Amino acid sequence: MPVPLLNCDMGESFGNWKMGLDEEVMAWIDCANIACGFHASDPGIMRHTAALALRHGVEIGAHPAYPDLQGFGRRSMTCTPAEVEAMLLYQVGALEAICRAEGGRVSYVKPHGALYQDMTRDPELLRAIMRAIHALDARLPLLVMATADTGAVRAMAEEEGISLRFESFADRAYDAEGLLVSRRLPGAVHHDREVIVDQALRLARGEALETIDGHSLVLASDTLCVHGDNAESVAAVRAIREAFNAMATS
Amino acid sequence: MPVPLLNCDMGESFGNWKMGLDEEVMAWIDCANIACGFHASDPGIMRHTAALALRHGVEIGAHPAYPDLQGFGRRSMTCTPAEVEAMLLYQVGALEAICRAEGGRVSYVKPHGALYQDMTRDPELLRAIMRAIHALDARLPLLVMATADTGAVRAMAEEEGISLRFESFADRAYDAEGLLVSRRLPGAVHHDREVIVDQALRLARGEALETIDGHSLVLASDTLCVHGDNAESVAAVRAIREAFNAMATS
Amino acid sequence: MPVPLLNCDMGESFGNWKMGLDEEVMAWIDCANIACGFHASDPGIMRHTAALALRHGVEIGAHPAYPDLQGFGRRSMTCTPAEVEAMLLYQVGALEAICRAEGGRVSYVKPHGALYQDMTRDPELLRAIMRAIHALDARLPLLVMATADTGAVRAMAEEEGISLRFESFADRAYDAEGLLVSRRLPGAVHHDREVIVDQALRLARGEALETIDGHSLVLASDTLCVHGDNAESVAAVRAIREAFNAMATS
Amino acid sequence: MPVPLLNCDMGESFGNWKMGLDEEVMAWIDCANIACGFHASDPGIMRHTAALALRHGVEIGAHPAYPDLQGFGRRSMTCTPAEVEAMLLYQVGALEAICRAEGGRVSYVKPHGALYQDMTRDPELLRAIMRAIHALDARLPLLVMATADTGAVRAMAEEEGISLRFESFADRAYDAEGLLVSRRLPGAVHHDREVIVDQALRLARGEALETIDGHSLVLASDTLCVHGDNAESVAAVRAIREAFNAMATS
Repeated sequence: MPVPLLNCDMGESFGNWKMGLDEEVMAWIDCANIACGFHASDPGIMRHTAALALRHGVEIGAHPAYPDLQGFGRRSMTCTPAEVEAMLLYQVGALEAICRAEGGRVSYVKPHGALYQDMTRDPELLRAIMRAIHALDARLPLLVMATADTGAVRAMAEEEGISLRFESFADRAYDAEGLLVSRRLPGAVHHDREVIVDQALRLARGEALETIDGHSLVLASDTLCVHGDNAESVAAVRAIREAFNAMATS
Repeated sequence: MPVPLLNCDMGESFGNWKMGLDEEVMAWIDCANIACGFHASDPGIMRHTAALALRHGVEIGAHPAYPDLQGFGRRSMTCTPAEVEAMLLYQVGALEAICRAEGGRVSYVKPHGALYQDMTRDPELLRAIMRAIHALDARLPLLVMATADTGAVRAMAEEEGISLRFESFADRAYDAEGLLVSRRLPGAVHHDREVIVDQALRLARGEALETIDGHSLVLASDTLCVHGDNAESVAAVRAIREAFNAMATS
Repeated sequence: MPVPLLNCDMGESFGNWKMGLDEEVMAWIDCANIACGFHASDPGIMRHTAALALRHGVEIGAHPAYPDLQGFGRRSMTCTPAEVEAMLLYQVGALEAICRAEGGRVSYVKPHGALYQDMTRDPELLRAIMRAIHALDARLPLLVMATADTGAVRAMAEEEGISLRFESFADRAYDAEGLLVSRRLPGAVHHDREVIVDQALRLARGEALETIDGHSLVLASDTLCVHGDNAESVAAVRAIREAFNAMATS
Repeated sequence: MPVPLLNCDMGESFGNWKMGLDEEVMAWIDCANIACGFHASDPGIMRHTAALALRHGVEIGAHPAYPDLQGFGRRSMTCTPAEVEAMLLYQVGALEAICRAEGGRVSYVKPHGALYQDMTRDPELLRAIMRAIHALDARLPLLVMATADTGAVRAMAEEEGISLRFESFADRAYDAEGLLVSRRLPGAVHHDREVIVDQALRLARGEALETIDGHSLVLASDTLCVHGDNAESVAAVRAIREAFNAMATS
């Protein structure tokens, strides 16, 4: 089993506003989820970020979102499936053209924020996203949550003719269904770097995690979501990368 | 010499707001300049308009603009050439993905409104637009004004490795340089359908127009810009089409 | 009992896009709910609409909404109560300054679209809106739905120190709780002008309506929501006005 | 002669994006120019910033701009005077309502960025801004550049019935007309704190500055523009404040 790819949200600045340590974290990750201008970024920042990823040999994913810059795409909006399908085409297409201008390509799609959460809850939104991807390029995998039971999402992806990548988190506690514990609850987020690296290694080896309610959970995980917001999170990414490197050579 | 293609701005509705008689005019034109969401339109309307064009066998052009919905892209903004280049990539890429989802392609680029006017005045903006097109697909022609002297724009297009289509207007008066007379001056816009059709035929045959100051002007014109705003302008488009058809068979 | 005031959404154009027959309907209404730029309108249109209302002696209400031009404020967004409170202050304040420049004042607040529906369902949003109004000017009434049981909303308004106006609809079917029947169900919207005028008169006289499931419903209604979207709806407004005038003089 | 007031741009964050050390610099200034949502800020940030200013006893000014978040209001837009007048009313009104909710008031107006520069060049824009202020509250002064010859702007302000505050810069080089030397030229911006404090003191005492071309320039200055972008600029503000305090007590 290959070690999971490290994916990280990137290009989340907007106009004059800076966000994230993209330059620092790019060296340690495999996949950059690049914002497409609806929740963050603008055409110039998208181009700069795509070029940065390509210089580091990092795979580029589209990170489309609801149209809500002020809310950073974190506010759910009651969009219809047809609206979601069209906004996916628009955003991924915009990033694809920018990547090509820099000599690269979009190679997967990861919805952002509230859209990511809503697709997990609402099969019609999930299907709309899959249809958009199929229309764009059926070879682009969609990133979805690795949960305890992924049968339904796998079945839908097969129906819609697209592929999936399952994503897990090294810094978040899980419940028995393989869902993330809400950030509002104590213990939901791991801050200790050793705990984070340990969970990353368990996920990489296919070993069980202990859920917040004491059960055992095995997640098949193609990729790990990591963060480049600040120096601490970049250090955690680096530690995971070094642990994966050590594992690979041991 | 082939008759000029009829191009028309399309898909200029936005959200709940409707604009233009797209359904009516699509039957009479060759090329639809589809708004890309910066001055008008949204992903759903772009998709609907692309599908409509494809059903009519109408060629699709991208109609990118400054980011200014409230001003409908008609207010000049002091964007840098790098900003303009990136916003072209973004908008054309977004429309291209939407067209592909409907089974079509973008096949030319026509900047909109203030951006179109600014590129005519500012060689660095024009070059930025050409570079964007070259990066997107060097086979996409750029629509520019047919004027009395097109040497400079032809030379720049050759340098940047792209092709051009020259556009003229059947319903506008020209000055001796082949520039449009400002709408603020009397006689700038032709309202009489016979006058419009006559000017269209002269342009199609390569015959001279009389300029507003009494000179003679010959414009080599690949395409004519027509309008679908209201019933009157649609009727003018239809009259031009019928006159072109009659000319072709005579 | 005075006849209910006729209130109508106004100023819903945006930039170059026109919507609604404001000029025509303004003659027949008492209260103009003027869009504040978040779901429709812009500063110039707000000013024009305020001036039009003042020329007709029509009362001006602020019509604030979620920040969603593309969705016309009809898509619910998961905003926090603090966000809603601040966006109310912003929008009502903007309209108030524009009204004062034209010699008028905002004299009530009616949330728009999804925000109106969400405040009906979510007491914390409703309270946030009330707090914003109290901070702006406690004398501005808030428009809310006239339903079968208005005890809870009255109690909250008293707690927050503001007043209410209860609104009903002449062209919509009600259920036994005094809620509007969903537009997706048959019979939800009355199209026959006689039926609309009859329901308006019943509401004005405090007489019972027959609900969609055959019950009897009495609504205490301070104001009736009418529409100026098209010639048919303007004609209905005029018919209601004339019926009210006839009732007043009989 | 009183020492000039220190004014500083504030509340320039937007949604999740942070900008400026508002908390740190607020202690040293007299006047906060609060962004109104068109080039930066949003209703929640405006409210937070107004509350912060009020806690520090700092005067609040409205800082309206062109509608251009991506360009931070630094891109000139060809808006008509009527558009500028209406957008001023809108933005100042929105901030005024938010200030009142926090127990404060807007007490002056300083246009931002490209709008500030454009009003200096274009008398019709300047007049539009003055008319907006007169319609809002004729007692609100407009901040304008202190230049060598302020006769024209004073005459226009008198015509339009508003008052002015003249603003100068401690960290910028001037030319003989009292205009700022373009940032693109060497020597345009002072970085040495001693030079900045010395220029601030000269401006406070009404002493001559040496212009970039060796002339002598006296500016009558009601207020000095200072910056809270980073720790260095905050330290400069503090040094100016302490020098002013020492001057006042000496």
